[in-house]
Amino acid sequence: MALRHIALFRWSEGVTSEQVARVEEELSRLPGVIPQLDGYSFGRDLGIGADTFDFAVVADVADEDAFAAYRDHPEHQEVLGVIRPLLAERASVQFRTGTA
Amino acid sequence: MALRHIALFRWSEGVTSEQVARVEEELSRLPGVIPQLDGYSFGRDLGIGADTFDFAVVADVADEDAFAAYRDHPEHQEVLGVIRPLLAERASVQFRTGTA
Repeated sequence: MALRHIALFRWSEGVTSEQVARVEEELSRLPGVIPQLDGYSFGRDLGIGADTFDFAVVADVADEDAFAAYRDHPEHQEVLGVIRPLLAERASVQFRTGTA
Repeated sequence: MALRHIALFRWSEGVTSEQVARVEEELSRLPGVIPQLDGYSFGRDLGIGADTFDFAVVADVADEDAFAAYRDHPEHQEVLGVIRPLLAERASVQFRTGTA
């Protein structure tokens, strides 16, 4: 069993593609510095579905302790400092997956 | 490159654990009947995060055509018929991932 963390973001009006590129650049550093991340994927919504937010982050970790370590890691907190001012809305779920 | 589809659900007030178990049972059939699903995970929110919805589904497919095949598959549509009456809110993102 493992734990999958999902966060969906809706950007505030006026957020530019360059600002989102900065977010992507910051996020791309995290797998290299947070050893609890067994898997990490993120990206911009492709505009092909319904009820869509603008951006998704998926983090795969071992368990609740590893999730907390990721969440509270200083480098992750630094990235959240870049993301938060751009956010209009956030939706999140943490759930148990069958694979380690 | 591949495509990752995420759907987060917030259940209406009064939805029971048994109704969610029915959703889980229905979803668990899909990987066996929809060949476009390269990966499929879903589950109930663990109650350990902020801004949380109640349930998540993550589908990994090859591309936009595979996503459409999954979305429109009769067995998937049948499961949506079970899910929709329980929904208060839905949030979704489709994004491109680095791995095939």
